[in-house]
Amino acid sequence: MSEGLRVAVVGATGLVGTEMLKILEERKFPIRELVPVASRADGRTVRFAGSDHEVVAISEEAFQGIDLALFSAGGGPSKTWSPVAAAAGALVIDNSSAFRRDPDVPLCVPEVNLEAARNPKKGIIANPNCSTIQMVVVLKPLHDAARIRRVVVATYQAISGAGASAVAAFREQARAFGNERPVPKGAIGDVLAGDLLMHWSRDVATGYQEEELKMVHETQKILGDDSIRVSPTAVRVPVAMSHSEAITIEFERPLTPGLAREILSQAAGIEIVDDFTRGRYPKPSDATGTDPVYVGRIREDVGNPGGIQLWCVADNIRKGAALNAIQIAEGLMPLKG
Amino acid sequence: MSEGLRVAVVGATGLVGTEMLKILEERKFPIRELVPVASRADGRTVRFAGSDHEVVAISEEAFQGIDLALFSAGGGPSKTWSPVAAAAGALVIDNSSAFRRDPDVPLCVPEVNLEAARNPKKGIIANPNCSTIQMVVVLKPLHDAARIRRVVVATYQAISGAGASAVAAFREQARAFGNERPVPKGAIGDVLAGDLLMHWSRDVATGYQEEELKMVHETQKILGDDSIRVSPTAVRVPVAMSHSEAITIEFERPLTPGLAREILSQAAGIEIVDDFTRGRYPKPSDATGTDPVYVGRIREDVGNPGGIQLWCVADNIRKGAALNAIQIAEGLMPLKG
Repeated sequence: MSEGLRVAVVGATGLVGTEMLKILEERKFPIRELVPVASRADGRTVRFAGSDHEVVAISEEAFQGIDLALFSAGGGPSKTWSPVAAAAGALVIDNSSAFRRDPDVPLCVPEVNLEAARNPKKGIIANPNCSTIQMVVVLKPLHDAARIRRVVVATYQAISGAGASAVAAFREQARAFGNERPVPKGAIGDVLAGDLLMHWSRDVATGYQEEELKMVHETQKILGDDSIRVSPTAVRVPVAMSHSEAITIEFERPLTPGLAREILSQAAGIEIVDDFTRGRYPKPSDATGTDPVYVGRIREDVGNPGGIQLWCVADNIRKGAALNAIQIAEGLMPLKG
Repeated sequence: MSEGLRVAVVGATGLVGTEMLKILEERKFPIRELVPVASRADGRTVRFAGSDHEVVAISEEAFQGIDLALFSAGGGPSKTWSPVAAAAGALVIDNSSAFRRDPDVPLCVPEVNLEAARNPKKGIIANPNCSTIQMVVVLKPLHDAARIRRVVVATYQAISGAGASAVAAFREQARAFGNERPVPKGAIGDVLAGDLLMHWSRDVATGYQEEELKMVHETQKILGDDSIRVSPTAVRVPVAMSHSEAITIEFERPLTPGLAREILSQAAGIEIVDDFTRGRYPKPSDATGTDPVYVGRIREDVGNPGGIQLWCVADNIRKGAALNAIQIAEGLMPLKG
């Protein structure tokens, strides 16, 4: 291809980086040259568009001539290298939490606030936390219709959010549990099979996990409304892929479940799976490997008439990370205009 | 023993019945004669206090001379046979949902409302739903302190709530998942390993699962306050034993997390596991096989100052079923006075 962009994928060998390569290919993203970047080069290659690409060690030179740099290598590398890539002229879309609360860095979910991502001051756009992305895709159209005052959310988050080694450890533990052998702790020092974990970083002052506070602050920033109150609980469940959320919403103006369902069925990025009388509702197993945010169990809140409760599931590695980043880039095309 | 009671355990070979036998023995419940009852006799025996007891088929005669009948054989058998046992002079403690909403049948969690269970009109006391029991043990002392107005709860319920065959199917599925083989649906027609289920009976009019509506109505009945509003979501998670709940509470008067922790640490039946800065919080794996309701993550609700969010875990077969029923009987002793 002589047309198209020079694209760097930073963290190209990780779970999200691998998915980014897959999605770029699936969606025929206009790429002239792909540069897979990782912390170390050590001779690894990644497969893209039918050929092997040698992984490049992260450095200033790696970003020379790059148009778009998709970062998913953790907060530390992002903090150091995103500004370097931006200074070299690349548009950076960063999947880490490093810049999400920076007022000069837009935090973007294309279905919700694509316009906020145009002409970013620092050349960096932040990709939100996985749990926030799927939630705000659902909240936005309801907020437009009836103004959300408060959201109570409990998450059921997949192991894959903790990376590839956690998924491998989970599989090993599941095998041990199934065979009635003692379950090994595995590489990540926690038992993931058959237990529930709250193992994200903790904010001592509030008693919240940072994962939970992200859902508070990122939701307000993306929806552009600091008056929306969020009461979150984040839990890691023994599910390999796709996050689920039990969401309870209070509105300024009452909203019926019928109208909420109608609004959500017409909203971008959402697929309704809500034939509950026949036992149909969104499940992680059905969401995995697909793009939509699935919504079901849409019902009037029995504890708050005029409010809504619902259940929302999405592939945390795709819509929760890789896909959302690429959709931002697609939405901003042409990057150089 | 020449002293003590003649006790029938109905559903003696099931998961809850087996646990009842174990707990009666552990707690040295004063038993003169144990009569294990099941729908069919077919020569089975159960082990109790060092000897084998032949299982008796359910019938009018089975209840002759019985002082205490602990029912855990499902709603159908309870509806038919609880009144028969009560008419024969037994005090019935029924673990099914058959009588829970009957205004003439007390619904009892001993830590909360033991007095309501004295001299039951019909000779029947109902044991609440597992998810409700552990929640009201936590809510009651907080309600006394600051009056609860609303509760939003999301459950993370263990497979064992669906019975012994579900646990066996879950183990088989975990083994298949661990070995990267296709996961079989198993006896109960659902994939329990690596997925999230909402497979309880559905109430078409409201869009709620009956499991969820139980948490609404039973909470109001046990706390004796119909003004408490409950917004529930019930989810079956791939955990074999012990239910967990993410609970958000709104009060009439503001309650600080410090005071809530103090109140709960002095409340009956509760153990606080809440050293979150060191990563300590209640886990299903720690609760399994033990009696307390474990509470942790006690924090001021970031979305509702003056409110509380917390996390509560208990063994669903013990405190959620067998233990609570036996504690009711213990609390009412002597049964014949």
